[in-house]
Amino acid sequence: MRKILVIGIGAGDPDHLTLQAVKAIETADVFFILDKGREKADLVELRQEILSRHAGDRPYRVVAAADPERDRSAPPPAYAPAVDDWRRRRADICEALIRDALKDGERGAFLVWGDPALYDSTIAIMDDIQARGAVSFDYEVLPGISSVSALAARHRTGLNRVGRPVRITTGRRLAEEGFPEDADDVVVMLDAHQGYLGLRDEDLQIHWGAYVGTPDEILVAGPLTEVADRISEARSEARNRKGWIMDTYLLRRRR
Amino acid sequence: MRKILVIGIGAGDPDHLTLQAVKAIETADVFFILDKGREKADLVELRQEILSRHAGDRPYRVVAAADPERDRSAPPPAYAPAVDDWRRRRADICEALIRDALKDGERGAFLVWGDPALYDSTIAIMDDIQARGAVSFDYEVLPGISSVSALAARHRTGLNRVGRPVRITTGRRLAEEGFPEDADDVVVMLDAHQGYLGLRDEDLQIHWGAYVGTPDEILVAGPLTEVADRISEARSEARNRKGWIMDTYLLRRRR
Repeated sequence: MRKILVIGIGAGDPDHLTLQAVKAIETADVFFILDKGREKADLVELRQEILSRHAGDRPYRVVAAADPERDRSAPPPAYAPAVDDWRRRRADICEALIRDALKDGERGAFLVWGDPALYDSTIAIMDDIQARGAVSFDYEVLPGISSVSALAARHRTGLNRVGRPVRITTGRRLAEEGFPEDADDVVVMLDAHQGYLGLRDEDLQIHWGAYVGTPDEILVAGPLTEVADRISEARSEARNRKGWIMDTYLLRRRR
Repeated sequence: MRKILVIGIGAGDPDHLTLQAVKAIETADVFFILDKGREKADLVELRQEILSRHAGDRPYRVVAAADPERDRSAPPPAYAPAVDDWRRRRADICEALIRDALKDGERGAFLVWGDPALYDSTIAIMDDIQARGAVSFDYEVLPGISSVSALAARHRTGLNRVGRPVRITTGRRLAEEGFPEDADDVVVMLDAHQGYLGLRDEDLQIHWGAYVGTPDEILVAGPLTEVADRISEARSEARNRKGWIMDTYLLRRRR
């Protein structure tokens, strides 16, 4: 039986790795890398650094494949289908990787940024491949430090107020729906379009972070009306300089 | 200057510890333990195990204090004030610990279960103590694997559907408000009263877990109407046997 390990490797700091993840990396025969292309070369390098630190001196293989392109221009109603299609193509690739690059009895690992449970498709892809039934394997998921936990830690803030809920959502949804009625604390991920700019009239605090946990980390916090422009400038400067950005933020309504 | 480390130590598996947390534990001079009394002796032991594994052979001190009792019988309107009062008494204790047990230039550590950002008061207490101004120290927060991430990993499920939000809430709030309108995926924490039992008429899936990551781990998943009784039985049996329970669950509305 082939075994797949879906390993959360944290939000960008190589020391976010858990002992459980280190032990799993030490035992994997093959590491699968889905290469997102030149723009995120930093992340591929960081993953490489994790391997050279923890995979050991024993022989292991690294098998890379190109991540399929995703149509990010799809308007909201077509968003989910576009992602479904992209996930299907990703499943095709992963299925081929597992079938062709992993021998029976071997262990293969997918290293996932952050926590595999949050806005990552690897678990769903494993389920899809198993449902197809063409290649048989078992899989295990190892939790990781999410960018949400990393953001909160660096800002030294909790995500929730006492006994109150937290909502984790996407930038797209925040832009469509505005600040939700039934939550005071909202974490926004995957926001390519700076959804916070549309909320300037609300009485909100923002805790924003980019490249959290890495040497490039940028943190800005304060009343949204006061710091929104500063965040946008920092964001666009960093994006131009590095070619990509990964940012997350917590919005908190004052009560 | 005194330095305090608020260290997330994960959800119950000693291997949830991050490399960053291990390094911090290796450097701390004093570990502060707030003892919650006999019922959670397992957790105190597990924390002790983490220290003996990682704190090293060098001299370090463990300073324990009794956690103040909290009035858990307070009805909903009095809930937040009851917690505020409890937190103030906790801050009194922590302030005294830092003042009396930590010398200038030393590093003291609070080991926090799960992730310090989620339903934990340590960060807020540090802010409270700093605001009082009677004892001066700097502090740093190290993120941990939350029970939410651990639950999702063990059930091999994501927390969100593609592009959809997740709500993290308390059992008390779920019981008061029912299943929210604007989320399909709801994580419930701190549920002493089995709020899921009030939602049997909804078309929900549940992923439930107790003592996740420990040898006592119990996992149940399925349609809520089918597995609710099984969860209640497992929950009450385990609670009677161990004297305490820590459980979390994900509710997912079918679309």
